[in-house]
Parts: sequence; structure tokens; C-alpha cells
Amino acid sequence: MNKEDYFIKQFDKNSSFIGDDGALVDNIVYSNDAFFEDVHFKKNWFSLKQIARKAMLVNISDAIAMNAVPKYALLTVAIPKEYSKKDIKELSQGFLEVAEEYGIEIIGGDTISNIKLDISVTIISKTNDAKLRSGIKKDDLICYTGDLGTCKKDLEKLLAGKKISKKSKFYEPKLKADFFYEVSKYVNAAMDISDGLFFELERMSKQSKVGFKFFDDISPEIACSGEEYELLFSFSPKNINKIEEIAKKHDVILNIFAKANKGKFRCDCKNHHF
Amino acid sequence: MNKEDYFIKQFDKNSSFIGDDGALVDNIVYSNDAFFEDVHFKKNWFSLKQIARKAMLVNISDAIAMNAVPKYALLTVAIPKEYSKKDIKELSQGFLEVAEEYGIEIIGGDTISNIKLDISVTIISKTNDAKLRSGIKKDDLICYTGDLGTCKKDLEKLLAGKKISKKSKFYEPKLKADFFYEVSKYVNAAMDISDGLFFELERMSKQSKVGFKFFDDISPEIACSGEEYELLFSFSPKNINKIEEIAKKHDVILNIFAKANKGKFRCDCKNHHF
Repeated sequence: MNKEDYFIKQFDKNSSFIGDDGALVDNIVYSNDAFFEDVHFKKNWFSLKQIARKAMLVNISDAIAMNAVPKYALLTVAIPKEYSKKDIKELSQGFLEVAEEYGIEIIGGDTISNIKLDISVTIISKTNDAKLRSGIKKDDLICYTGDLGTCKKDLEKLLAGKKISKKSKFYEPKLKADFFYEVSKYVNAAMDISDGLFFELERMSKQSKVGFKFFDDISPEIACSGEEYELLFSFSPKNINKIEEIAKKHDVILNIFAKANKGKFRCDCKNHHF
Repeated sequence: MNKEDYFIKQFDKNSSFIGDDGALVDNIVYSNDAFFEDVHFKKNWFSLKQIARKAMLVNISDAIAMNAVPKYALLTVAIPKEYSKKDIKELSQGFLEVAEEYGIEIIGGDTISNIKLDISVTIISKTNDAKLRSGIKKDDLICYTGDLGTCKKDLEKLLAGKKISKKSKFYEPKLKADFFYEVSKYVNAAMDISDGLFFELERMSKQSKVGFKFFDDISPEIACSGEEYELLFSFSPKNINKIEEIAKKHDVILNIFAKANKGKFRCDCKNHHF
């Protein structure tokens, strides 16, 4: 078990909420993700606006995957001493742009001076029908949206000092809020793909106590690609037509790749952290 | 204006919530404070358990000062790679101890590997009668609890490589939850003293649009001492007897030091950050 998982494990006894993308309390979802320099990004890879945008979007992704509508945000922002007012303005613009795009009000947080740019965002969202990782039923079909694999390749390119497309999802996740809010009533379980498809499937397997029968082999390039922020969800086979129709309407690619069965699934990807 | 304040100013237009220790939304208070290595503490000053305890307590202090009862916490914890499992266990014990002492459930967060120990805590609290910084009325009496000044002296000692008392409030703030929940119905405005009495009075002056007539001179040692986490509040003179009675019952020292008048108050302390 890695140290991060060991730390989280200490809190299992204290809480019945840990285990999903966010914590569901009385129809409110609380999600919280860090976005730290030299952990999640290198500063020469991104503009300051891109960094702020991505810090917001990876958190909003959690809310959407739980079928919750983000309402408020709290920001902890540790800013390097050498940043100019122009830098700070650009950074704040990124947060504000995404807040406006999603109708989120930034209600507070903490700002400090630090040796590097470290961001932590808490998003407060509302839902009447939360989707959890634990909802997969036996014989459910399992699918993910969009393409997987490009973020792993793009990260490898960046680490090798190469350039990547300006449109890369590594710079900015392509969230699918409208699609998922419409399709959610036909969905049994959901989460977003932040650490990689197989990492997330292991989490769903544990929470839902199911295994998966894959329809085809999935290559490590696809299975182990993190930072994708695509949706991963399960549904009853009887809803397949409705789900495909809604996907078509929103121009969302659906990859139905497995069926839930009795058993367990264990991820064999290497750790995704750089 | 320093860079932190400049950053926060960018969000003024987006939000009507910023300006108090926490953000009040529908009887829920959201407070969020960072506790970062080499910003708020040096690692040789504290044990890991003390660090975790203080990270929680400075956030709980915000909730109490708003007359809100903390219910849930989200933790962002960036852990140095070299920490052993024993270290991680000690750290988590600190969070769990305080959570248990205050009846808080730790419902989620994010854990990452980092070059230093950086913590950000979000506390979710409930209140039926929130106390804000904006509530001071003309002629209100202004008071703070406990002693001020020791934290500044203790910080200076630590920075000079000297030892301080194990009982120092710099290690562990002495919160006064029971006192404040009981006294709150007689209180017009409140906040905690995190950056120093005069820093906080300037914030209250702005939010309440009042100035202060001081009964005595206050020395810079007292006025500019940060990290005290004492309560600062205002009340109508007619409630003085009730408030003194409740303070006596809870063994809380009350320092009534000023009266609110027309005007403005500006802090002339030097910046408190080390």
C-alpha cells in the first residue's frame, strides 16, 4: 500500500463518507482536490490561467460524476513570493472564468505566500440523485466516455521536453456536464477517471463488490492513462438505447467495454504519479 | 496592498460571502485555512501530532467565532516522500483526536506526495445565529478573551532557536467553544484573532463601518501578536453583566478595551508573517 492510501486508511473508522469522488451529506456533495506544482504540473507546461482553470475543472469533474451541480468553491492558494500583480491577476482570472462558466460562486478560502504554486479547491454541489461508486449491479454494462490514452502520451511528451497540442485534454479536461445530468437517471454507479481507467475500476470493484468481464482486451496505454477526466459509469442493459440516444444528442462518444459479474478486479498499472 | 490581499480582492465582485472567518450559506458556515510548512510552522518546532492538531484547531476557531458548531472536515494533506508509516500514523492521529474532541467527522479530501508538509482544512459547521464581523453597533463595547502577546514572544523565541513552554498557545490554541456558544446571544459581532488584535480590528472596522475609542493604550506586543486564536467580539453595554457572569462561569478572562464610535480604524502593526 502506498503512503497516501495508508494515510487515507487511518480515517476509515472515523467516517462512512470516504470512498467516492466527493462526500455526500444531506444532498450536498463536498469534493476536494489538490493541484500542486511539481506534483500535478510543472510551471513551464502551463500558463497561470490554465493552471487555475484545471484546478477548478478537476474538482468540478468529481461533482458532475456524482450527478451534482456545483454551487460554491473555496480556494486555498499558496502563491510564490516572486509572482507579480499581473501574474496574480492572470491566476485569479482562470478561477473566475471557470466559476462563471459553471455558475459557481467563490465564497472563501485562504491565500498565503509560498515557495511554489500549490492550490487546493473545495467544491460544494447539490444533488437530488447522487451517483456513487457502490451502485454497480451484477450484469450492468460498464462504459467510459470519450477517448482514453492521449493524456498519458501527452504527459510523457512533456516530461521528455516535447510540445503537445494546445487542445490536449491534459491542459484542459473536457467535462460532459449536460450529457451526464440528462443520462444520470438511467445510471447505477459513476465516477470520473482521474488516475486511469483500471485504477478507477479497482475502486468501483471494491465499493460495488463486483468484478468485470471485458468484451475486448484493453491496452495499458488506454487502461493506465490518468488525468483524463472522462466519465466511467454503469447501467442496466435495458437502458442501453436511451443512453446511446442521449450520448448522440450531446455528441459524446460511449465505449461500452465490460459487464459486471461476481468477482474482484485488481489494477495492474504502475503508479501514475510523476 | 500585499499580494495575498490583491489576490483576494479579485474575487470581491464574484462573491458577497467573502469578509468573515467563514462563508455563511443557508445556516452552514464553510471555513478554510492553510497550515503550510515554512509558512505557518517549521518542522523542528512541532511534533507531527501537534501540527495536525493545530491545523484542525485554527479552522475550528473560525467556526466557533461565528457561533457555528463544526460537523465535518475535508483535509488536503501533502506529505513529504521521506515520511515513514509511523510518521503518517502520528499525523493522522492528530487529526482524528481533534475530530473526536469536537464531534467532527472527516468526510474526505486529498492526499498527495510533496517536498514538504502542507495542510489545508475545510470545516463545515452549522449555526442558527451566525456572528459576523459586520455586526458592531455604535456604542458597542469591544472585548477579547484571554491573554494576548505570548504567541508573538514565543514565535520570536522559536525563530531565535530558543525553547518555549510546552503549554504555549503557539503549540495549541485554547479555544473557548462552550463559553462562546453560551454568550453568543448577547453578542453583536465576532471573529477570532489569528493575525493580531489590530489586524482584526481593521477588518471589523471595515465590515461594520465603525471606529474604536480605546480605554487605554495597547502596546504593540499585545496589539500585533498573531496566532493567538482568542475571541474578539462586541456587545451592547446593557449586556455587560450577563456576559461577565458567563465568562466567570467558564473561567474565561474578558478584556473590555474599547467602545465603537463613528470613524475608521487602521492597523499600524508590521506584517505578521515570518
